[in-house]
Amino acid sequence: MLKLHHLRIGRSIFTLWLMEELELDYELEIYQRTETFRAPPELKKAHPLGKSPVLQDGDIIVSESGAIATYLTTLYGQDKGLAPDPSDKAAFARFQSFLHFAEGTLVGPFMMMMVGAGVDQVKGFAEPEIAANLAYLADELGEKDYIMGDNFSAADVGLVCVLGMASNMGNGFGHANLDAYLARCMARSAFARAKEKGVE
Amino acid sequence: MLKLHHLRIGRSIFTLWLMEELELDYELEIYQRTETFRAPPELKKAHPLGKSPVLQDGDIIVSESGAIATYLTTLYGQDKGLAPDPSDKAAFARFQSFLHFAEGTLVGPFMMMMVGAGVDQVKGFAEPEIAANLAYLADELGEKDYIMGDNFSAADVGLVCVLGMASNMGNGFGHANLDAYLARCMARSAFARAKEKGVE
Repeated sequence: MLKLHHLRIGRSIFTLWLMEELELDYELEIYQRTETFRAPPELKKAHPLGKSPVLQDGDIIVSESGAIATYLTTLYGQDKGLAPDPSDKAAFARFQSFLHFAEGTLVGPFMMMMVGAGVDQVKGFAEPEIAANLAYLADELGEKDYIMGDNFSAADVGLVCVLGMASNMGNGFGHANLDAYLARCMARSAFARAKEKGVE
Repeated sequence: MLKLHHLRIGRSIFTLWLMEELELDYELEIYQRTETFRAPPELKKAHPLGKSPVLQDGDIIVSESGAIATYLTTLYGQDKGLAPDPSDKAAFARFQSFLHFAEGTLVGPFMMMMVGAGVDQVKGFAEPEIAANLAYLADELGEKDYIMGDNFSAADVGLVCVLGMASNMGNGFGHANLDAYLARCMARSAFARAKEKGVE
């Protein structure tokens, strides 16, 4: 059986959400942060880096949100339409590009702003990067409901993970369609179920 | 025909390398950095963010190194053994985990060290992260030649991209097997061909 190692509060809530969208049966192991808001040492039993999310499938371990998304959408719940089949090359290209964009490009400067809070040198680099990335994303989303078009996909989960974090950091996006997109995604019933199960 | 938009000097050399490993036919469009070492504005015609690598497949655009790796290994040159078939669940899980680890976890603190060079606050966060990530990777590599075992894969390309950058920044890894791994990967004939074609 699938098992998700979920650290609250953290980004694994988004993997939990994806599993709810896929309507999977799974076990959930919930870890609480320490008083200093670090991951607890028990999480290192699931993965040596002690980070979450970690997906366990029997004795197979999958780490990194995007890898788990590709693993789950390829091997489980293909009928749920959360990832295009590779035979649809254009959709597959777009899906993979945005799945990797979230964690490869979009998240980086936000992390820098957190780690280098108050440091002008960091701000000077990160702020224009954030502005460019958000403008690109807003343009690619356009009037569509989701990044792939009319249908929600696992790429939206990755994007919302970063946009949600950015929003919590007090960043306005400056793009009304991104604000609406974040609200639309977070209003999905599967996200509500994930929050309830993940005790967020 | 496939076309790679390659900005030199930059990380697209690693996508070029992957294409050489896959023995693909492709066109190469080379862009030179400006005097201030920025990407030239022409690159924005290939992709709005003006970043490289960008893969063009007819009128399909794929961006982000990891997305291009998944796109190419899924749709082209499957017989080259550079990515496991999803039916081999354990190998697929490991492959996707390390493909995403490179750009999702490993690269982050190195980028922070570049952007926040000389800033103690950034160093205080990034240095222990780098040490933990490298120790994890060294442990996972162990005595194997490549991260998947005896055979080179697209996940190695992603890892070497980051390790090579770290090495250029003057970081020693403190793990002899990672030093040997980097040298072993970079000694491959496909990497030599990529460097020659990419004019690195």
